[in-house]
Amino acid sequence: MSTIAIVGATGAVGQEMLECLDQRNVPFDELVLLASARSAGKRIPFRGQELVVRELTHDAFEGIDIALFSAGGGISKEFGPSAAKAGAVVIDNSSAFRMDADVPLVVPEINGDAAFNHPRNIIANPNCTTIVSLMALAPLHRAFGLKSVIGSSYQAVSGSGAQGIAELDTQAKAYAADEEITPSVYPVQIFSNAIPLIGSMTETGYTDEEMKLTKEGAKILDLAGLKASITCVRVPVMRSHSVAITAQFDRPVSVDAAREAIDAFDGVQVIDDPANGKFPTPLDCTNRDDCLVGRIRPSLVLDNALDLWVVGDQVRKGAALNAVQIAELLIARGN
Amino acid sequence: MSTIAIVGATGAVGQEMLECLDQRNVPFDELVLLASARSAGKRIPFRGQELVVRELTHDAFEGIDIALFSAGGGISKEFGPSAAKAGAVVIDNSSAFRMDADVPLVVPEINGDAAFNHPRNIIANPNCTTIVSLMALAPLHRAFGLKSVIGSSYQAVSGSGAQGIAELDTQAKAYAADEEITPSVYPVQIFSNAIPLIGSMTETGYTDEEMKLTKEGAKILDLAGLKASITCVRVPVMRSHSVAITAQFDRPVSVDAAREAIDAFDGVQVIDDPANGKFPTPLDCTNRDDCLVGRIRPSLVLDNALDLWVVGDQVRKGAALNAVQIAELLIARGN
Repeated sequence: MSTIAIVGATGAVGQEMLECLDQRNVPFDELVLLASARSAGKRIPFRGQELVVRELTHDAFEGIDIALFSAGGGISKEFGPSAAKAGAVVIDNSSAFRMDADVPLVVPEINGDAAFNHPRNIIANPNCTTIVSLMALAPLHRAFGLKSVIGSSYQAVSGSGAQGIAELDTQAKAYAADEEITPSVYPVQIFSNAIPLIGSMTETGYTDEEMKLTKEGAKILDLAGLKASITCVRVPVMRSHSVAITAQFDRPVSVDAAREAIDAFDGVQVIDDPANGKFPTPLDCTNRDDCLVGRIRPSLVLDNALDLWVVGDQVRKGAALNAVQIAELLIARGN
Repeated sequence: MSTIAIVGATGAVGQEMLECLDQRNVPFDELVLLASARSAGKRIPFRGQELVVRELTHDAFEGIDIALFSAGGGISKEFGPSAAKAGAVVIDNSSAFRMDADVPLVVPEINGDAAFNHPRNIIANPNCTTIVSLMALAPLHRAFGLKSVIGSSYQAVSGSGAQGIAELDTQAKAYAADEEITPSVYPVQIFSNAIPLIGSMTETGYTDEEMKLTKEGAKILDLAGLKASITCVRVPVMRSHSVAITAQFDRPVSVDAAREAIDAFDGVQVIDDPANGKFPTPLDCTNRDDCLVGRIRPSLVLDNALDLWVVGDQVRKGAALNAVQIAELLIARGN
């Protein structure tokens, strides 16, 4: 049994981590909630009790076995090493350590074993769009050998945290009340709009968010030569990311074999009978653990390639659930 | 000078046609508004007068020189030939005649000359997503030779006409009022959702909407070998379609040369300085004649290929404006 801490317990992902720990009956002795001084003292209900949020300090990790971090890259960089030094295994939801060679980057269904090799006591949780995309691509990679990915994302505002959700909520209500809409979190209005820029520009012309699938995907799949060209777009959807993907493989693929491979994989389901109105949407995925895949069909442009549509709850499998699943792996092995 | 009729004058596109005729000072002698018996007698303001909507009948086209049809494929098939027989040139916004060999399919900036060869007195207006995509692709095709297109669309509810706009409006207001959302136009909720199915399924696994870019694109660009693999997705955006495109060319391309080629083309502008927050969004395009292109960068997967993002007002350039521009060509040449 273990003592678990959540850093950023009052955020959207932190709250979802609490829900995952509860729903999945994760076994632990004690749960410690940590957040900024501003949130310290706040009471958060959990399993019929109220947990008092403590202030995040460098000394807060004594006796903690597993520290789930979800408070942004800056907090992870500042406090993650303190937690690791105090003996906790850090499971970090930020991008701070993901590409470090001595930090495993883990999606439990795909490369769960990697979680046990954590020389720095830090395990990284991948980017949400990367997790959702790989939940469809990993089983196809095993079956056919993944060569390249061309993708366009439809990313929910939950990817910007609770403030992103509040922004769309506020703007939808302003629209309904015929009031002026003033952007605050995003540079332009998100209600009734689509923003083709997520993250910061890199010298490739792609944003760092767009490069994550290439870099993180190659690490998670252990596939150094993976090529990926992604367009990341924010859409007015509360939660659940969707990605339209063209995936090319080393070997010939069939739609039936692809469906079988995906359906046999843990954590992902095929919903793909569009002629009868069966296709996955972000709303279908909301509060659901599994990612959903549909619209699987042969590419009309590339050989040995499929077009498909994958959806996953950004807050859950894209962040909180994946981190809690990593914690479960550690707990099952006694850390 | 000419007499112009609008069939479907009370619809979203019909209303926009009136606005385009007015704003562009299209010269004509008389404007006749036609619609279903239900809408007949309705008064519609135009240039300070009120025009009375007449009932659409087979005899309604006597003396009409140009008939702009935008009332759905069924109406076009039933009444288009009557109009053509009465001597009018039909400019049809539906998909009814687009792929007929003896019906030109015209985007004026791309293949305007084709409008003058209309042996059946019928000219077709292309699909909205096709027009928007081609406004970026046509200049690139001229410069580099287009080979293939992989695309994902972000299609506005205006593509479903006034009822689509009403559906998103109603659902946004229901959300704001914390009331239940009941889908009516779309099979599932569109507010805070994305629907990866537009049109009817074909045997390819792609919908007829998704096949339009291949078929119509090949006809408009006179490029029989064009390959295209498209995923069409409805998003909660009121109007203006966006498309994320990976386009591969016969010859090497550079981002600078691509920008120059697009900017030199009529009806399309480059807005592409994402590091300084400059990228086109659907809201930027609303009520704008020009399509906007941004995020132009080399594909990280395919050789001689670019990734880009193109946006166009679905009601305007995607439908009404393009039809009115075709009418202008005819009027300038005395039909």
